[in-house]
Amino acid sequence: MNAQTFAVILVEPQLGENIGMCARAMWNCGVDDLRLVNPRDGWPSEPARAAASGADAVIDNARVFESTKDAVADLNFIVATTARPRDMTKPVFTPEAAAKDMRRRTDGGQRTGVLFGKEAWGLHNDDVALADAILTVPLNPAFTSLNLAQAVLLMSYEWFKLADATPGHEMRIPADTRPADKVELTNLFEHLETELADAGFFTAAEKRPTMVRKLRNMLSRAEMTEQEVRMFRGIIKALTLRNRT
Amino acid sequence: MNAQTFAVILVEPQLGENIGMCARAMWNCGVDDLRLVNPRDGWPSEPARAAASGADAVIDNARVFESTKDAVADLNFIVATTARPRDMTKPVFTPEAAAKDMRRRTDGGQRTGVLFGKEAWGLHNDDVALADAILTVPLNPAFTSLNLAQAVLLMSYEWFKLADATPGHEMRIPADTRPADKVELTNLFEHLETELADAGFFTAAEKRPTMVRKLRNMLSRAEMTEQEVRMFRGIIKALTLRNRT
Repeated sequence: MNAQTFAVILVEPQLGENIGMCARAMWNCGVDDLRLVNPRDGWPSEPARAAASGADAVIDNARVFESTKDAVADLNFIVATTARPRDMTKPVFTPEAAAKDMRRRTDGGQRTGVLFGKEAWGLHNDDVALADAILTVPLNPAFTSLNLAQAVLLMSYEWFKLADATPGHEMRIPADTRPADKVELTNLFEHLETELADAGFFTAAEKRPTMVRKLRNMLSRAEMTEQEVRMFRGIIKALTLRNRT
Repeated sequence: MNAQTFAVILVEPQLGENIGMCARAMWNCGVDDLRLVNPRDGWPSEPARAAASGADAVIDNARVFESTKDAVADLNFIVATTARPRDMTKPVFTPEAAAKDMRRRTDGGQRTGVLFGKEAWGLHNDDVALADAILTVPLNPAFTSLNLAQAVLLMSYEWFKLADATPGHEMRIPADTRPADKVELTNLFEHLETELADAGFFTAAEKRPTMVRKLRNMLSRAEMTEQEVRMFRGIIKALTLRNRT
Protein backbone atom coordinates (compact mmCIF):
# COMPACT_ATOMS: atom_id res chain seq x y z
CA MET A 1 0.00 0.00 0.00
CA ASN A 2 1.26 3.48 -0.87
CA ALA A 3 2.55 5.41 2.16
CA GLN A 4 1.18 8.67 0.77
CA THR A 5 -1.93 9.75 2.69
CA PHE A 6 -4.83 11.83 1.49
CA ALA A 7 -4.69 15.58 2.15
CA VAL A 8 -7.00 17.20 4.70
CA ILE A 9 -7.92 20.67 3.40
CA LEU A 10 -9.57 22.96 5.95
CA VAL A 11 -11.22 25.85 4.14
CA GLU A 12 -11.32 29.07 6.22
CA PRO A 13 -11.08 27.35 9.60
CA GLN A 14 -11.93 29.73 12.43
CA LEU A 15 -10.43 28.68 15.77
CA GLY A 16 -6.81 27.55 16.02
CA GLU A 17 -8.00 25.08 18.65
CA ASN A 18 -10.19 23.34 16.07
CA ILE A 19 -7.25 23.11 13.66
CA GLY A 20 -5.20 21.51 16.43
CA MET A 21 -7.90 18.97 17.22
CA CYS A 22 -8.07 18.08 13.53
CA ALA A 23 -4.28 17.60 13.46
CA ARG A 24 -4.52 15.32 16.50
CA ALA A 25 -7.28 13.22 14.93
CA MET A 26 -5.32 12.97 11.66
CA TRP A 27 -2.10 11.87 13.34
CA ASN A 28 -3.99 9.31 15.46
CA CYS A 29 -4.69 7.68 12.11
CA GLY A 30 -1.29 8.32 10.51
CA VAL A 31 -2.64 11.02 8.15
CA ASP A 32 -0.10 13.85 7.87
CA ASP A 33 -0.91 16.21 4.97
CA LEU A 34 -2.75 19.23 6.45
CA ARG A 35 -3.58 22.22 4.22
CA LEU A 36 -5.22 25.43 5.44
CA VAL A 37 -7.06 27.86 3.19
CA ASN A 38 -7.13 31.34 4.79
CA PRO A 39 -7.21 30.37 8.48
CA ARG A 40 -9.08 33.26 10.14
CA ASP A 41 -6.67 33.72 13.07
CA GLY A 42 -3.48 33.29 11.04
CA TRP A 43 -0.74 30.69 11.02
CA PRO A 44 1.30 29.44 12.88
CA SER A 45 -1.09 29.27 15.82
CA GLU A 46 -0.22 28.52 19.43
CA PRO A 47 -3.80 27.41 20.28
CA ALA A 48 -3.56 24.95 17.38
CA ARG A 49 -0.28 23.51 18.64
CA ALA A 50 -1.64 23.15 22.17
CA ALA A 51 -4.84 21.42 21.03
CA ALA A 52 -2.85 19.05 18.83
CA SER A 53 -1.57 17.44 22.07
CA GLY A 54 1.68 16.31 20.54
CA ALA A 55 0.69 15.83 16.90
CA ASP A 56 3.53 18.22 16.02
CA ALA A 57 4.41 16.24 12.91
CA VAL A 58 1.15 17.46 11.36
CA ILE A 59 1.26 21.02 12.74
CA ASP A 60 4.87 21.57 11.60
CA ASN A 61 4.13 20.40 8.06
CA ALA A 62 0.83 22.22 7.63
CA ARG A 63 0.75 24.50 4.57
CA VAL A 64 -1.29 27.67 4.11
CA PHE A 65 -2.95 28.66 0.82
CA GLU A 66 -4.88 31.72 -0.31
CA SER A 67 -7.56 29.83 -2.17
CA THR A 68 -9.05 26.35 -2.37
CA LYS A 69 -7.96 26.24 -6.02
CA ASP A 70 -4.32 26.66 -4.95
CA ALA A 71 -4.64 24.16 -2.10
CA VAL A 72 -5.80 21.37 -4.40
CA ALA A 73 -3.64 22.22 -7.43
CA ASP A 74 -1.43 19.10 -7.25
CA LEU A 75 -4.27 16.66 -6.46
CA ASN A 76 -6.04 14.36 -8.90
CA PHE A 77 -9.21 13.64 -6.97
CA ILE A 78 -10.99 15.62 -4.27
CA VAL A 79 -14.03 15.00 -2.13
CA ALA A 80 -16.05 17.80 -0.49
CA THR A 81 -17.57 17.18 2.93
CA THR A 82 -21.15 18.39 3.17
CA ALA A 83 -24.25 17.32 5.08
CA ARG A 84 -26.75 19.39 3.10
CA PRO A 85 -27.74 18.27 -0.37
CA ARG A 86 -26.43 20.87 -2.81
CA ASP A 87 -28.18 21.51 -6.05
CA MET A 88 -25.56 19.51 -7.95
CA THR A 89 -25.41 16.18 -9.68
CA LYS A 90 -22.48 14.43 -8.01
CA PRO A 91 -21.43 11.07 -6.60
CA VAL A 92 -21.93 10.91 -2.82
CA PHE A 93 -19.68 8.70 -0.68
CA THR A 94 -19.79 7.51 2.91
CA PRO A 95 -16.44 7.87 4.74
CA GLU A 96 -15.80 4.13 4.39
CA ALA A 97 -16.48 4.07 0.65
CA ALA A 98 -14.50 7.29 0.12
CA ALA A 99 -11.54 5.79 2.00
CA LYS A 100 -11.64 2.69 -0.21
CA ASP A 101 -11.87 4.75 -3.38
CA MET A 102 -9.05 7.09 -2.35
CA ARG A 103 -6.78 4.21 -1.21
CA ARG A 104 -7.24 2.58 -4.61
CA ARG A 105 -6.37 5.85 -6.34
CA THR A 106 -3.38 6.46 -4.08
CA ASP A 107 -2.08 2.96 -4.75
CA GLY A 108 -2.37 3.77 -8.45
CA GLY A 109 -0.21 6.88 -8.03
CA GLN A 110 -2.92 9.53 -7.76
CA ARG A 111 -3.02 12.23 -5.07
CA THR A 112 -6.28 12.72 -3.24
CA GLY A 113 -7.77 15.14 -0.74
CA VAL A 114 -10.84 15.91 1.34
CA LEU A 115 -12.25 19.44 1.75
CA PHE A 116 -13.80 20.45 5.07
CA GLY A 117 -15.61 23.76 5.50
CA LYS A 118 -15.64 26.20 8.40
CA GLU A 119 -18.03 24.24 10.60
CA ALA A 120 -17.48 20.87 8.94
CA TRP A 121 -20.38 21.60 6.57
CA GLY A 122 -19.64 25.19 5.71
CA LEU A 123 -18.12 24.82 2.25
CA HIS A 124 -19.01 27.37 -0.42
CA ASN A 125 -20.92 25.97 -3.37
CA ASP A 126 -18.01 27.03 -5.58
CA ASP A 127 -15.69 24.74 -3.61
CA VAL A 128 -18.18 21.88 -3.78
CA ALA A 129 -18.46 22.35 -7.55
CA LEU A 130 -14.68 21.97 -7.77
CA ALA A 131 -14.76 18.54 -6.12
CA ASP A 132 -15.08 15.19 -7.86
CA ALA A 133 -17.46 13.84 -5.26
CA ILE A 134 -19.28 14.63 -2.04
CA LEU A 135 -18.58 13.06 1.34
CA THR A 136 -21.58 12.78 3.67
CA VAL A 137 -21.29 11.03 7.02
CA PRO A 138 -24.44 9.01 7.69
CA LEU A 139 -25.68 10.08 11.15
CA ASN A 140 -28.74 10.10 13.39
CA PRO A 141 -31.21 12.07 11.19
CA ALA A 142 -32.42 13.88 14.34
CA PHE A 143 -28.92 15.22 15.10
CA THR A 144 -26.41 15.58 12.32
CA SER A 145 -24.30 18.42 13.76
CA LEU A 146 -20.84 16.84 13.78
CA ASN A 147 -17.91 18.98 14.87
CA LEU A 148 -14.99 19.59 12.53
CA ALA A 149 -12.43 17.37 14.28
CA GLN A 150 -14.99 14.57 14.59
CA ALA A 151 -15.62 14.67 10.82
CA VAL A 152 -11.85 14.63 10.17
CA LEU A 153 -11.47 11.73 12.62
CA LEU A 154 -14.14 9.54 11.02
CA MET A 155 -12.65 10.05 7.55
CA SER A 156 -9.09 9.45 8.81
CA TYR A 157 -10.09 6.40 10.84
CA GLU A 158 -11.79 4.74 7.88
CA TRP A 159 -8.62 5.39 5.87
CA PHE A 160 -6.43 3.97 8.65
CA LYS A 161 -8.59 0.86 9.09
CA LEU A 162 -8.02 -0.23 5.50
CA ALA A 163 -4.30 -0.70 6.19
CA ASP A 164 -4.70 -2.05 9.72
CA ALA A 165 -4.35 -5.76 10.36
CA THR A 166 -5.55 -5.82 13.99
CA PRO A 167 -7.84 -8.84 14.44
CA GLY A 168 -11.39 -7.81 15.40
CA HIS A 169 -11.31 -10.06 18.43
CA GLU A 170 -8.53 -12.00 20.14
CA MET A 171 -7.68 -13.31 23.60
CA ARG A 172 -4.89 -11.25 25.13
CA ILE A 173 -2.69 -13.29 27.47
CA PRO A 174 -0.01 -11.74 29.73
CA ALA A 175 3.57 -12.62 28.77
CA ASP A 176 4.24 -14.53 32.00
CA THR A 177 1.70 -17.28 31.29
CA ARG A 178 0.09 -19.30 28.46
CA PRO A 179 -3.24 -20.97 27.74
CA ALA A 180 -3.70 -24.11 29.86
CA ASP A 181 -3.39 -27.39 28.00
CA LYS A 182 -6.09 -30.01 28.16
CA VAL A 183 -4.30 -32.31 30.61
CA GLU A 184 -4.01 -29.42 33.09
CA LEU A 185 -7.72 -28.73 32.68
CA THR A 186 -8.66 -32.41 33.03
CA ASN A 187 -6.61 -32.67 36.20
CA LEU A 188 -8.43 -29.59 37.55
CA PHE A 189 -11.84 -31.08 36.67
CA GLU A 190 -11.00 -34.41 38.33
CA HIS A 191 -9.63 -32.67 41.42
CA LEU A 192 -12.81 -30.62 41.75
CA GLU A 193 -15.15 -33.56 41.08
CA THR A 194 -13.36 -35.80 43.63
CA GLU A 195 -13.66 -33.15 46.30
CA LEU A 196 -17.31 -32.48 45.41
CA ALA A 197 -18.07 -36.21 45.65
CA ASP A 198 -16.36 -36.35 49.07
CA ALA A 199 -18.38 -33.33 50.20
CA GLY A 200 -21.66 -35.01 49.19
CA PHE A 201 -22.39 -32.47 46.41
CA PHE A 202 -23.67 -35.20 44.03
CA THR A 203 -26.79 -36.15 45.94
CA ALA A 204 -28.25 -38.44 43.28
CA ALA A 205 -25.74 -40.76 41.55
CA GLU A 206 -27.71 -40.82 38.29
CA LYS A 207 -27.50 -37.01 38.01
CA ARG A 208 -23.72 -36.93 38.50
CA PRO A 209 -22.79 -37.27 34.77
CA THR A 210 -25.07 -34.35 33.81
CA MET A 211 -23.71 -32.16 36.59
CA VAL A 212 -20.12 -33.01 35.66
CA ARG A 213 -20.78 -32.09 32.04
CA LYS A 214 -22.28 -28.74 33.06
CA LEU A 215 -19.32 -27.96 35.32
CA ARG A 216 -16.74 -28.91 32.69
CA ASN A 217 -18.60 -26.94 30.03
CA MET A 218 -18.72 -23.79 32.15
CA LEU A 219 -15.07 -23.98 33.18
CA SER A 220 -13.86 -24.77 29.65
CA ARG A 221 -15.58 -21.65 28.35
CA ALA A 222 -13.38 -19.47 30.57
CA GLU A 223 -10.31 -20.36 28.44
CA MET A 224 -8.09 -20.44 31.55
CA THR A 225 -4.37 -19.86 31.54
CA GLU A 226 -1.99 -22.29 33.21
CA GLN A 227 -1.66 -19.78 36.09
CA GLU A 228 -5.42 -19.61 36.53
CA VAL A 229 -5.70 -23.41 36.65
CA ARG A 230 -3.12 -23.46 39.47
CA MET A 231 -4.98 -20.65 41.26
CA PHE A 232 -8.25 -22.55 40.94
CA ARG A 233 -6.71 -25.74 42.36
CA GLY A 234 -5.34 -23.65 45.23
CA ILE A 235 -8.87 -22.40 45.90
CA ILE A 236 -10.22 -25.96 46.02
CA LYS A 237 -7.45 -26.97 48.42
CA ALA A 238 -8.08 -23.96 50.65
CA LEU A 239 -11.83 -24.59 50.84
CA THR A 240 -11.53 -28.34 51.44
CA LEU A 241 -8.82 -27.92 54.11
CA ARG A 242 -11.09 -25.52 55.97
CA ASN A 243 -13.85 -28.11 55.88
CA ARG A 244 -11.51 -30.70 57.37
CA THR A 245 -10.37 -28.69 60.40
CA MET B 1 -32.79 -4.68 15.20
CA ASN B 2 -33.37 -3.82 18.86
CA ALA B 3 -33.79 -0.06 19.47
CA GLN B 4 -31.99 -0.33 22.82
CA THR B 5 -28.48 1.15 22.53
CA PHE B 6 -25.40 0.26 24.50
CA ALA B 7 -24.63 2.37 27.60
CA VAL B 8 -21.69 4.80 27.63
CA ILE B 9 -20.23 4.79 31.15
CA LEU B 10 -17.79 7.62 31.88
CA VAL B 11 -15.81 6.78 35.01
CA GLU B 12 -14.74 9.87 36.98
CA PRO B 13 -14.89 12.27 34.05
CA GLN B 14 -13.16 15.56 34.83
CA LEU B 15 -14.37 18.45 32.68
CA GLY B 16 -18.07 19.00 32.06
CA GLU B 17 -17.08 20.13 28.57
CA ASN B 18 -15.70 16.66 27.82
CA ILE B 19 -18.92 15.05 29.04
CA GLY B 20 -20.88 17.35 26.71
CA MET B 21 -18.70 16.47 23.74
CA CYS B 22 -19.24 12.78 24.49
CA ALA B 23 -23.01 13.34 24.62
CA ARG B 24 -22.85 15.11 21.25
CA ALA B 25 -20.85 12.27 19.67
CA MET B 26 -23.26 9.69 21.11
CA TRP B 27 -26.36 11.44 19.85
CA ASN B 28 -24.80 11.94 16.40
CA CYS B 29 -24.94 8.14 16.29
CA GLY B 30 -28.32 7.70 18.01
CA VAL B 31 -26.76 6.36 21.24
CA ASP B 32 -28.64 7.77 24.24
CA ASP B 33 -27.75 5.94 27.47
CA LEU B 34 -25.11 8.06 29.28
CA ARG B 35 -23.98 7.08 32.79
CA LEU B 36 -21.53 9.07 34.89
CA VAL B 37 -19.54 7.63 37.78
CA ASN B 38 -18.50 10.41 40.20
CA PRO B 39 -18.13 13.30 37.74
CA ARG B 40 -15.48 15.53 39.35
CA ASP B 41 -17.28 18.84 38.84
CA GLY B 42 -20.74 17.55 39.78
CA TRP B 43 -23.96 17.10 37.83
CA PRO B 44 -25.94 18.70 36.21
CA SER B 45 -23.27 20.75 34.47
CA GLU B 46 -23.76 23.87 32.37
CA PRO B 47 -20.43 23.42 30.52
CA ALA B 48 -21.58 19.91 29.60
CA ARG B 49 -24.89 21.17 28.22
CA ALA B 50 -23.16 23.90 26.21
CA ALA B 51 -20.60 21.50 24.72
CA ALA B 52 -23.34 19.03 23.81
CA SER B 53 -24.47 21.57 21.17
CA GLY B 54 -28.07 20.44 21.24
CA ALA B 55 -27.73 16.80 22.25
CA ASP B 56 -30.07 17.57 25.15
CA ALA B 57 -31.79 14.21 24.85
CA VAL B 58 -28.60 12.59 26.13
CA ILE B 59 -27.74 15.25 28.74
CA ASP B 60 -31.26 15.23 30.22
CA ASN B 61 -31.30 11.45 30.59
CA ALA B 62 -27.76 11.06 31.96
CA ARG B 63 -27.63 9.21 35.28
CA VAL B 64 -25.03 9.61 38.01
CA PHE B 65 -23.67 6.70 40.08
CA GLU B 66 -21.30 6.50 43.03
CA SER B 67 -19.38 3.48 41.77
CA THR B 68 -18.71 1.62 38.55
CA LYS B 69 -20.29 -1.45 40.15
CA ASP B 70 -23.58 0.45 40.57
CA ALA B 71 -23.42 1.95 37.09
CA VAL B 72 -23.21 -1.45 35.40
CA ALA B 73 -25.54 -3.36 37.76
CA ASP B 74 -28.32 -3.94 35.19
CA LEU B 75 -26.00 -4.81 32.29
CA ASN B 76 -25.12 -8.28 31.03
CA PHE B 77 -21.94 -7.52 29.13
CA ILE B 78 -19.42 -4.70 29.50
CA VAL B 79 -16.32 -3.70 27.61
CA ALA B 80 -13.54 -1.58 29.14
CA THR B 81 -11.73 0.92 26.91
CA THR B 82 -7.97 0.85 27.40
CA ALA B 83 -4.94 1.45 25.20
CA ARG B 84 -2.34 -0.03 27.53
CA PRO B 85 -2.10 -3.81 27.88
CA ARG B 86 -3.16 -4.68 31.43
CA ASP B 87 -1.78 -7.73 33.14
CA MET B 88 -5.01 -9.64 32.55
CA THR B 89 -6.14 -12.48 30.33
CA LYS B 90 -9.10 -11.01 28.47
CA PRO B 91 -10.63 -10.85 25.02
CA VAL B 92 -9.64 -7.66 23.17
CA PHE B 93 -11.99 -6.13 20.61
CA THR B 94 -11.65 -3.40 17.98
CA PRO B 95 -14.57 -0.91 17.99
CA GLU B 96 -16.03 -2.56 14.87
CA ALA B 97 -15.90 -6.07 16.34
CA ALA B 98 -17.20 -4.84 19.72
CA ALA B 99 -20.12 -3.13 17.98
CA LYS B 100 -21.00 -6.33 16.13
CA ASP B 101 -20.77 -8.41 19.31
CA MET B 102 -22.86 -5.95 21.33
CA ARG B 103 -25.50 -5.58 18.59
CA ARG B 104 -25.88 -9.35 18.53
CA ARG B 105 -26.27 -9.42 22.31
CA THR B 106 -28.73 -6.51 22.28
CA ASP B 107 -30.82 -8.21 19.61
CA GLY B 108 -30.88 -11.26 21.88
CA GLY B 109 -32.26 -9.18 24.77
CA GLN B 110 -29.02 -8.50 26.65
CA ARG B 111 -27.97 -5.06 27.91
CA THR B 112 -24.46 -3.93 27.12
CA GLY B 113 -22.14 -1.06 28.02
CA VAL B 114 -18.72 0.43 27.38
CA LEU B 115 -16.55 1.89 30.16
CA PHE B 116 -14.38 4.92 29.44
CA GLY B 117 -11.83 6.22 31.97
CA LYS B 118 -10.89 9.77 32.89
CA GLU B 119 -8.70 10.44 29.88
CA ALA B 120 -10.20 7.75 27.66
CA TRP B 121 -7.54 5.32 28.91
CA GLY B 122 -7.61 6.11 32.59
CA LEU B 123 -9.64 3.20 33.95
CA HIS B 124 -8.60 1.63 37.25
CA ASN B 125 -7.47 -1.98 37.00
CA ASP B 126 -10.38 -2.91 39.29
CA ASP B 127 -12.83 -1.53 36.73
CA VAL B 128 -11.06 -3.35 33.90
CA ALA B 129 -11.21 -6.61 35.88
CA LEU B 130 -14.98 -6.13 36.18
CA ALA B 131 -15.40 -6.03 32.40
CA ASP B 132 -16.05 -8.98 30.09
CA ALA B 133 -13.68 -7.71 27.44
CA ILE B 134 -11.31 -4.91 26.53
CA LEU B 135 -11.84 -2.35 23.77
CA THR B 136 -8.69 -1.03 22.13
CA VAL B 137 -8.88 1.33 19.16
CA PRO B 138 -6.16 0.46 16.64
CA LEU B 139 -4.26 3.71 15.94
CA ASN B 140 -0.98 5.04 14.57
CA PRO B 141 1.53 3.33 16.93
CA ALA B 142 3.52 6.59 17.03
CA PHE B 143 0.54 8.56 18.39
CA THR B 144 -2.21 6.75 20.26
CA SER B 145 -3.43 9.62 22.45
CA LEU B 146 -7.11 9.77 21.52
CA ASN B 147 -9.34 12.22 23.36
CA LEU B 148 -12.35 10.99 25.32
CA ALA B 149 -15.08 12.23 22.95
CA GLN B 150 -13.15 10.84 19.96
CA ALA B 151 -13.05 7.38 21.57
CA VAL B 152 -16.78 7.60 22.33
CA LEU B 153 -17.44 8.74 18.75
CA LEU B 154 -15.55 5.86 17.12
CA MET B 155 -17.37 3.26 19.25
CA SER B 156 -20.76 4.94 18.68
CA TYR B 157 -20.18 5.34 14.95
CA GLU B 158 -19.30 1.66 14.50
CA TRP B 159 -22.50 0.81 16.37
CA PHE B 160 -24.54 3.20 14.21
CA LYS B 161 -23.06 1.90 10.95
CA LEU B 162 -24.34 -1.61 11.59
CA ALA B 163 -27.94 -0.39 11.40
CA ASP B 164 -27.36 2.14 8.63
CA ALA B 165 -28.40 1.33 5.08
CA THR B 166 -26.76 4.29 3.32
CA PRO B 167 -25.13 3.02 0.12
CA GLY B 168 -21.36 3.52 0.14
CA HIS B 169 -21.50 5.35 -3.15
CA GLU B 170 -24.38 6.72 -5.23
CA MET B 171 -25.02 9.48 -7.75
CA ARG B 172 -27.05 12.29 -6.17
CA ILE B 173 -29.32 14.05 -8.66
CA PRO B 174 -31.26 17.26 -7.86
CA ALA B 175 -35.02 16.82 -7.69
CA ASP B 176 -35.67 19.11 -10.70
CA THR B 177 -33.93 16.86 -13.20
CA ARG B 178 -33.20 13.19 -14.01
CA PRO B 179 -30.47 11.15 -15.68
CA ALA B 180 -30.44 11.72 -19.44
CA ASP B 181 -31.73 8.84 -21.52
CA LYS B 182 -29.70 7.34 -24.32
CA VAL B 183 -31.60 9.03 -27.16
CA GLU B 184 -30.90 12.45 -25.60
CA LEU B 185 -27.23 11.53 -25.36
CA THR B 186 -27.08 10.19 -28.92
CA ASN B 187 -28.70 13.38 -30.22
CA LEU B 188 -26.09 15.39 -28.34
CA PHE B 189 -23.24 13.28 -29.76
CA GLU B 190 -24.56 13.62 -33.32
CA HIS B 191 -25.08 17.37 -32.91
CA LEU B 192 -21.50 17.78 -31.68
CA GLU B 193 -20.00 15.52 -34.36
CA THR B 194 -21.89 17.28 -37.18
CA GLU B 195 -20.64 20.67 -36.02
CA LEU B 196 -17.10 19.36 -35.58
CA ALA B 197 -17.15 17.94 -39.12
CA ASP B 198 -18.40 21.30 -40.46
CA ALA B 199 -15.62 23.06 -38.56
CA GLY B 200 -12.97 20.80 -40.09
CA PHE B 201 -12.07 19.16 -36.75
CA PHE B 202 -11.75 15.68 -38.32
CA THR B 203 -8.69 16.37 -40.48
CA ALA B 204 -8.15 12.76 -41.58
CA ALA B 205 -11.33 10.83 -42.53
CA GLU B 206 -9.86 7.48 -41.45
CA LYS B 207 -9.25 8.79 -37.91
CA ARG B 208 -12.81 10.05 -37.48
CA PRO B 209 -14.30 6.80 -36.07
CA THR B 210 -11.57 6.59 -33.36
CA MET B 211 -12.03 10.24 -32.43
CA VAL B 212 -15.80 9.84 -32.24
CA ARG B 213 -15.44 6.82 -29.94
CA LYS B 214 -13.11 8.75 -27.63
CA LEU B 215 -15.50 11.70 -27.46
CA ARG B 216 -18.54 9.53 -26.83
CA ASN B 217 -16.67 7.53 -24.19
CA MET B 218 -15.57 10.65 -22.31
CA LEU B 219 -19.00 12.27 -22.41
CA SER B 220 -20.81 9.07 -21.41
CA ARG B 221 -18.64 8.78 -18.32
CA ALA B 222 -19.98 12.10 -17.02
CA GLU B 223 -23.42 10.50 -16.47
CA MET B 224 -25.16 13.71 -17.56
CA THR B 225 -28.62 14.73 -16.49
CA GLU B 226 -31.24 15.78 -19.02
CA GLN B 227 -30.61 19.43 -17.97
CA GLU B 228 -26.89 19.07 -18.57
CA VAL B 229 -27.45 17.61 -22.03
CA ARG B 230 -29.56 20.65 -22.90
CA MET B 231 -26.91 22.96 -21.45
CA PHE B 232 -24.21 21.23 -23.48
CA ARG B 233 -26.23 21.57 -26.71
CA GLY B 234 -26.70 25.26 -25.87
CA ILE B 235 -22.92 25.58 -25.58
CA ILE B 236 -22.39 23.98 -29.00
CA LYS B 237 -24.97 26.31 -30.53
CA ALA B 238 -23.40 29.38 -28.93
CA LEU B 239 -19.90 28.49 -30.12
CA THR B 240 -20.96 27.60 -33.67
CA LEU B 241 -23.13 30.72 -34.05
CA ARG B 242 -20.15 32.85 -33.07
CA ASN B 243 -18.09 31.14 -35.76
CA ARG B 244 -20.72 31.94 -38.37
CA THR B 245 -20.96 35.68 -37.76
